[in-house]
Amino acid sequence: MVAVDFNCVPLPVPIDSLRVLLPEGVLLTDPGLLAGYRTDETHDPGAGTPAAVVRVTDVGQVQDTLRWASANRVAIIPRGAGSGLAGGVSAFDGAVVLSLERLTRIEIDPVARVAYAEAGALNGEVKRAAAEHGLWYPPDPSSFEICSIGGNVATNAGGLCCVKYGVTTDYVLGLDVVLADGTLVTVGGPRIKDVAGLPLAKLFVGSEGTLGVVTRAVLRLVPAQGKRSTLVALFPTVAAAGEAVVEVGQSIRPSMVELMDHASINAVEDYEPRGLDRSARALLLFQSDSPGPARTRDIELIHTVSQKHGATEIFETDDAAEGEQFVAARRNANPACKALGSVLTEDVAVSIPHLPALLTRIEEIAAAHGVSVPTVAHAGDGNLHPHVIYDETDVESVMQAHAVFAEIMHAAIELGGTITGEHGVGRAKVDYLADQLGPDVMALTRSIKSALDPLGILNPGAGI
Amino acid sequence: MVAVDFNCVPLPVPIDSLRVLLPEGVLLTDPGLLAGYRTDETHDPGAGTPAAVVRVTDVGQVQDTLRWASANRVAIIPRGAGSGLAGGVSAFDGAVVLSLERLTRIEIDPVARVAYAEAGALNGEVKRAAAEHGLWYPPDPSSFEICSIGGNVATNAGGLCCVKYGVTTDYVLGLDVVLADGTLVTVGGPRIKDVAGLPLAKLFVGSEGTLGVVTRAVLRLVPAQGKRSTLVALFPTVAAAGEAVVEVGQSIRPSMVELMDHASINAVEDYEPRGLDRSARALLLFQSDSPGPARTRDIELIHTVSQKHGATEIFETDDAAEGEQFVAARRNANPACKALGSVLTEDVAVSIPHLPALLTRIEEIAAAHGVSVPTVAHAGDGNLHPHVIYDETDVESVMQAHAVFAEIMHAAIELGGTITGEHGVGRAKVDYLADQLGPDVMALTRSIKSALDPLGILNPGAGI
Repeated sequence: MVAVDFNCVPLPVPIDSLRVLLPEGVLLTDPGLLAGYRTDETHDPGAGTPAAVVRVTDVGQVQDTLRWASANRVAIIPRGAGSGLAGGVSAFDGAVVLSLERLTRIEIDPVARVAYAEAGALNGEVKRAAAEHGLWYPPDPSSFEICSIGGNVATNAGGLCCVKYGVTTDYVLGLDVVLADGTLVTVGGPRIKDVAGLPLAKLFVGSEGTLGVVTRAVLRLVPAQGKRSTLVALFPTVAAAGEAVVEVGQSIRPSMVELMDHASINAVEDYEPRGLDRSARALLLFQSDSPGPARTRDIELIHTVSQKHGATEIFETDDAAEGEQFVAARRNANPACKALGSVLTEDVAVSIPHLPALLTRIEEIAAAHGVSVPTVAHAGDGNLHPHVIYDETDVESVMQAHAVFAEIMHAAIELGGTITGEHGVGRAKVDYLADQLGPDVMALTRSIKSALDPLGILNPGAGI
Repeated sequence: MVAVDFNCVPLPVPIDSLRVLLPEGVLLTDPGLLAGYRTDETHDPGAGTPAAVVRVTDVGQVQDTLRWASANRVAIIPRGAGSGLAGGVSAFDGAVVLSLERLTRIEIDPVARVAYAEAGALNGEVKRAAAEHGLWYPPDPSSFEICSIGGNVATNAGGLCCVKYGVTTDYVLGLDVVLADGTLVTVGGPRIKDVAGLPLAKLFVGSEGTLGVVTRAVLRLVPAQGKRSTLVALFPTVAAAGEAVVEVGQSIRPSMVELMDHASINAVEDYEPRGLDRSARALLLFQSDSPGPARTRDIELIHTVSQKHGATEIFETDDAAEGEQFVAARRNANPACKALGSVLTEDVAVSIPHLPALLTRIEEIAAAHGVSVPTVAHAGDGNLHPHVIYDETDVESVMQAHAVFAEIMHAAIELGGTITGEHGVGRAKVDYLADQLGPDVMALTRSIKSALDPLGILNPGAGI
């Protein structure tokens, strides 16, 4: 269900007055086309239909659209590639979707080691453009081939290598942002260090389109990643796996620390058999990209720690392709879960030592409801993705799935954690945000929102 | 000169009504004691004398002081260790200095790998507390032994290892902040990943006490740094040194890339002779902390690149103590400059490829004014510290120094750079901020300031 609470005029939206501001082909009102802009990857059944979609081809059109929206108090839903997992771009009747998908330009400055990427450029395209110069843009959401930089910025997207290399905000040096009234501002820029004024670029990263529309990012690039070695270990309990994760992290920084629980191991084996031990309670997938012999030492240390914590099976490889097979298995968790039914994808995170406790709570919640919740985790960051499996054609199943979804969030909050580590709040979790943040932080949030978007036209009902 | 422009009532400040709120010994009004709270390390001659200093011993006193300040519209200057280099805590008549120096508690959670550090805890103390558990808090301003975490957060402090390990904001997971009205909020927490709501912790890092008073930080810790190898190279031109910095950064990430120009080499040699070649136009100091043989390879690569760009002399050592001698020489630049006269410490930054151009401009500006401006730089980050030497007893010299200071900032802005890379705007640079940010970003800044501090009581005249 999409909750909407803002000061817009009622329908109908004066679309004709917007149409005259935009070149032909930019404004879509054909119902068949609008249907494709109703939801993101959450496929929110409560999503409405936007009054129009503006597929801008330049920044001036973003400004024109926002000026018009301010003048007419129309809700704007900024949208990247639509690959989000929290309903951040779920539409509602009377809103206008502002799609950045055509702003796809990427320029690499290899000497300054920065990428200038427009909001609609895909993460994978930025990676490839950087790689042509021997450089690397690290943030790697599982969806990197289909998600946009604008969406990555909006959600402060993470990924698999973030355990060593950080998340989107760590790579954003500057942003072009169109504010609610149509003003275009550039905050930050291609400078590694800049503390002049407030850290405005940082404020927009993760703000889910509620404070402004990001049209371009200046992204920091680093030298290409080195060779990786891979270790996979199976554990008899999630607690043992969690302890191994904590202990490894005390002395080295692996470039990947992923976890699959019993249910997700089995989901992946059902989907595409790889001979994983279906009886294991947890699988850990480590990679190290340390240079030379240090990589071997990292893997040896991980091996020793895994053994100490009772690993029943350990597999190692220095072969890139073989290592990638295991990463692919981990990435398969998402389609594997979808093969089991409809999926609510969770994204809770806790302090690393609380990982086993949260995994145990998730198993308990799943068992209590008789629901399957295969869980994978960016374990090294304490970030879990439980997949709540349900039947969307069965009302009771839908309600039960949402109950499980909510209970998992509250379990994370009780452990001092967060309802979202990298996907964002969107519309799927907005009703739970106050449970985590409390009234004072919510009031602080609203004061900033009001300062930047006094009419409440920017992505109302999402994010905050 | 301290510029003040805010909505406070005129003097006298109703100190007695504050005194009754605080335990004995917390409120200082003795003129002899107040004198020690007039300035930071800029020793701003235009600083006034605060009406009182509140040396809080707990967070409740911060809240009481801010509630009182809001009720009475008294300006509050939050202060850490007073080691700042931008006049961020320069006092003015009628203001109350809120000193966090007694909030020094540090707790390490070695399993979660976080430090809980109160605002008055020194950076070096946090490093040592972490080291007891084999962990490391990387940000390392040159002043790390005397600067506080609160000040580090206020300025988003950098340092020497930041070229590889990032700056303060990259390590701040959460903050306790007392808002202008006395409300205590906790934003973020001991979670590596958390995108629930706006990125409020990031907003406060670098806000220079203008949005709230940070009382405690949750800091991310990482495994202890490995052994370091050191390479020092001398160059016949700053351009050649700049090119070497750019080329090294294309393929490896050294843990230190510092530069000293001709004038600073000579200043350091005057101060404490180490046999550096006084004729060299630039010295680069590299360190690598890559593990094992990779470190040797890094140093070999740096050697090759330095040679390629015309280095006239190269010295290498794997010995930690010997390497530290060179780092000490670099750190000596500050006292060495102070031995030459009064110093205005600059902190401009540019995109790395513009480093040689800015160094050349600084030499030109210095020559045109007949002023000595020894310059050191965190070259790998494009962040320069020109030291403008002048005679504070000579009015003409003082005016000339400020003219040079301003010209260097404008040179950085013209090259697409920033007036401050890590020291902050404070009161020393606040008049130049709009020249960099422009009117729209200034307006955006003011809207956020007004939302969080509607009465304008928090550090008025500084930072923004």
